[in-house]
Amino acid sequence: MPVRDMSVMCAVCSGRRARPNLNLLLLLILLLGPHTVEGVWPLPQAITSSTERYPLTPQAFCFSYGRRSAARPGCSVLDAASERYFSLIFPDYTYANDVLRLSENKPFTVEISVDHDDCDSYPMENSSEKYNLSVSAGRASLNAETVWGAVRGLETFSQLVYQDDFGSYFVNKTKIEDFPRFQFRGILLDTSRHYLPVKTILKSLDAMAYNKFNVFHWHIVDDPSFPYQSHTFPDLSSKGAFHPMTHIYTQSDVRRVISYARLRGIRVLPEFDSPGHTKSWGKGQSDLLTPCYKGGIPSGTFGPVNPALPSTYQFMERLFKEVSAVFPDSYIHLGGDEVDLSCWRSNPYVRAFMQKMGFGVDFAKLEAFYMEKVVNITSFFNKTSIVWQDVFDYHERRSSLSVVEVWKEGCYLCEVRRVAKAGLRVILASPWYLDQPGPTHNWARYYTVWPLAFKGTEEQKSLVIGGEVCMWGEYVDATNLAPRLWPRASAAAERLWSNEKQTSSVDKAFPRLQDFRCILLRRGIQAEPLYVGHCKHEYHSV
Amino acid sequence: MPVRDMSVMCAVCSGRRARPNLNLLLLLILLLGPHTVEGVWPLPQAITSSTERYPLTPQAFCFSYGRRSAARPGCSVLDAASERYFSLIFPDYTYANDVLRLSENKPFTVEISVDHDDCDSYPMENSSEKYNLSVSAGRASLNAETVWGAVRGLETFSQLVYQDDFGSYFVNKTKIEDFPRFQFRGILLDTSRHYLPVKTILKSLDAMAYNKFNVFHWHIVDDPSFPYQSHTFPDLSSKGAFHPMTHIYTQSDVRRVISYARLRGIRVLPEFDSPGHTKSWGKGQSDLLTPCYKGGIPSGTFGPVNPALPSTYQFMERLFKEVSAVFPDSYIHLGGDEVDLSCWRSNPYVRAFMQKMGFGVDFAKLEAFYMEKVVNITSFFNKTSIVWQDVFDYHERRSSLSVVEVWKEGCYLCEVRRVAKAGLRVILASPWYLDQPGPTHNWARYYTVWPLAFKGTEEQKSLVIGGEVCMWGEYVDATNLAPRLWPRASAAAERLWSNEKQTSSVDKAFPRLQDFRCILLRRGIQAEPLYVGHCKHEYHSV
Repeated sequence: MPVRDMSVMCAVCSGRRARPNLNLLLLLILLLGPHTVEGVWPLPQAITSSTERYPLTPQAFCFSYGRRSAARPGCSVLDAASERYFSLIFPDYTYANDVLRLSENKPFTVEISVDHDDCDSYPMENSSEKYNLSVSAGRASLNAETVWGAVRGLETFSQLVYQDDFGSYFVNKTKIEDFPRFQFRGILLDTSRHYLPVKTILKSLDAMAYNKFNVFHWHIVDDPSFPYQSHTFPDLSSKGAFHPMTHIYTQSDVRRVISYARLRGIRVLPEFDSPGHTKSWGKGQSDLLTPCYKGGIPSGTFGPVNPALPSTYQFMERLFKEVSAVFPDSYIHLGGDEVDLSCWRSNPYVRAFMQKMGFGVDFAKLEAFYMEKVVNITSFFNKTSIVWQDVFDYHERRSSLSVVEVWKEGCYLCEVRRVAKAGLRVILASPWYLDQPGPTHNWARYYTVWPLAFKGTEEQKSLVIGGEVCMWGEYVDATNLAPRLWPRASAAAERLWSNEKQTSSVDKAFPRLQDFRCILLRRGIQAEPLYVGHCKHEYHSV
Repeated sequence: MPVRDMSVMCAVCSGRRARPNLNLLLLLILLLGPHTVEGVWPLPQAITSSTERYPLTPQAFCFSYGRRSAARPGCSVLDAASERYFSLIFPDYTYANDVLRLSENKPFTVEISVDHDDCDSYPMENSSEKYNLSVSAGRASLNAETVWGAVRGLETFSQLVYQDDFGSYFVNKTKIEDFPRFQFRGILLDTSRHYLPVKTILKSLDAMAYNKFNVFHWHIVDDPSFPYQSHTFPDLSSKGAFHPMTHIYTQSDVRRVISYARLRGIRVLPEFDSPGHTKSWGKGQSDLLTPCYKGGIPSGTFGPVNPALPSTYQFMERLFKEVSAVFPDSYIHLGGDEVDLSCWRSNPYVRAFMQKMGFGVDFAKLEAFYMEKVVNITSFFNKTSIVWQDVFDYHERRSSLSVVEVWKEGCYLCEVRRVAKAGLRVILASPWYLDQPGPTHNWARYYTVWPLAFKGTEEQKSLVIGGEVCMWGEYVDATNLAPRLWPRASAAAERLWSNEKQTSSVDKAFPRLQDFRCILLRRGIQAEPLYVGHCKHEYHSV
């Protein structure tokens, strides 16, 4: 797409105009009859629409800032969003076919007003995403508290526009009041088990925005590889990545991902999982991992991070100092799951340390000690830490924890309840492990999840801040990420955004999700089919 | 790729030459040490290789026809194959970087000799695919009975060439004698439940050739849509396709697919499944399907093809006359599976017909009658018909059948044995239903299949002519076809081509399959990963 220098934005809408062929348009309206609004995915909290519809043409369409809007022209987030959504609203439009550029008709204007000028900020945990959208003759008005809410509203508006069989664009008279049910709606991508090219990550961020997901949980390093290029510890990636040049994320790559996500109202939540899941760390940082022993001597293999050495905490302090500065989000994910205790147990120095600390032979105490140290380090850098449920399960002083992510199968709502009862915030991931391929028609399994269906007070339920789709990387890389993720993750997207009562029926959701999958496909997201059939515009991008 | 006018083919090898930097090459050999040949997928019947290796450069490499070869320059199949394999062997090579074009060194020559000049024929069921390949200093000789065998040998040769870390190409001294274990090694694609663009089909044919599959079973029509544009019955697609213009295969599309497949030694086996699975046929051909009755009157719905009307067989005769001419293969698939009898049962005219024919109320007799008529029609057009096992199961006069495809789960070898005991040829599909996504690491399930592990005589076992991977289309379209098919279908490819004893170990196969998956990826096939890790050249094409 050629750079258009904000030409789709008009100051008070004096910009791009054209004379639509009104007679032809009227004829089409008469011929085709009214379009029923297929609905927006995820479903807005309140939507009323009529069969009254208005023709749109790319030559006579613009976005503008409302007079009382705190954000003004030059607002990076909204200027960029207008550019993006212009193309998404008019997918067939190219400058080459822009032959009508007369200025006799008033363009259809989408007027955006926001209460706060937060154009240069980052979306944060408490950022409002609420918006109101009203579409009437010749104009739409989009009001939001923040630019993030406005971005969500633009996505909704783009989904309201449709084409008839002749390619003409229309939008129906509509009124929408919308806000998310949960504040945290995440997707985890794992770039350690397979490296994902930056452009694959960016494409996933596009798709996330279409689904109103707002957190990219970047499980950036793990046992198999350490692709994050640290400027403090460059050996971590030069020795721990699959390839020190081609399979790393440079500081510039990371900035690009964060910036791309920000413009779409998406937070980037990095995870540096420890003390387990750290094999690749050991390649570039000696004395970090615990040497395992066999028959009284070191076996040559290494276990989790060594919790008994002061150097470990000095390293973590320096690493997290960097990471806290590089990633602007107020949250950080510290992992803490699946620690294999056998290596610690085998190591005489670790055992001696436990004696000294009064832990006896209780390795849970050692884990808790380690995690508390790391939590304190990141707190010092003003980060709220998330940990996997394992840490909550073995931790005695749970009050030192903030947010717990529930991931294990079984009665996951029992665990949600336990965490909420302990007064901690909860993120639910268990029902949304999409890395395992299921029959696609199992999308309903991801839809019929009721995150608050546990016995608890309103206050406890309000501690469930959201949920997350996990796309682990054992069997997933850029070849199959998109079709494995979409549209199954869209089922979770609606569960996390929409009113549960209005979206409890799988049967009602199915045709809407089919339509939405076609939208994703047309936008270049390789979303796999839900069942037999076809999309009107499929295969433009495959 | 620019058209190269056969420049990679040299008459007696006087063509493209260059002066490789011998000193540098020697240095590299010393630095890097010998490369172990990772092996060819599927594994050749006999392979011996040494660590002695020869450098190759695209500037000094050519294919030529052996002096005693029956096929000569101008042979379409081998000329085209040489072009293709030149690019596959030297993936980094572009004319732009072709700076060395001196002619002092003799090029490395692959000399191809075939016994029969079958350049303009089609690969058939009894076409030999046997070849011998010998790689020595400065030359390789590839001998085969047919051009199809030579094409298989070129694939093998292309997999023997590798690059070192500096990008230089090498091939090791190697001797291979190879031939397929089974004559029929197919992949079914379903273009009715979802339309697959022609380029998706062609890409699948590429991948099939890399895997030495030799039959593309084109399940071209079914209940949901009829995309085959028949010149005899144009209404079938204009009314029965998902879209009469964009979601059809024109005669020219079909010719293109057949021609593309031929050049790769792949037969195109069309399936026109009846009398069930024909809902879409009814839209363009009235009176073809059986009207279902309810309460003594037509209910408005339709069932399988109406076997009681003479017009049905007149239609089938004309349709199969066309299809037999359009598709050159000597086989045709007639389906015959999953016939829903309730509609026939409800229809008084069908019941009256059965009385007249002396079938009583035995609907199996009616099915058998119908299938026998259709088998006879296609026999008249010199086609060998394949039917799904259902037809064998209900058919009394089994001797009228030729080839039976076993697809049901459970003890599929019991069914294979029954069919072979009845003296009919068998194709095994049951264990290779890959449309269902399984965890990718389940590739071993498709590998550990033993098609001849049933009690029977040698003669009976020889009736098992091969096997087939079925990729049904309910949940599969162009968005997810490639990663769902590859590399899982590669497991079946080796089972069907290679010696069973040499390929019985999953553990030995795993690293070879991982390497082969990387080759597929580099060749632009979106094959999904088998497990954690990376390919040296991944993401060139994603």
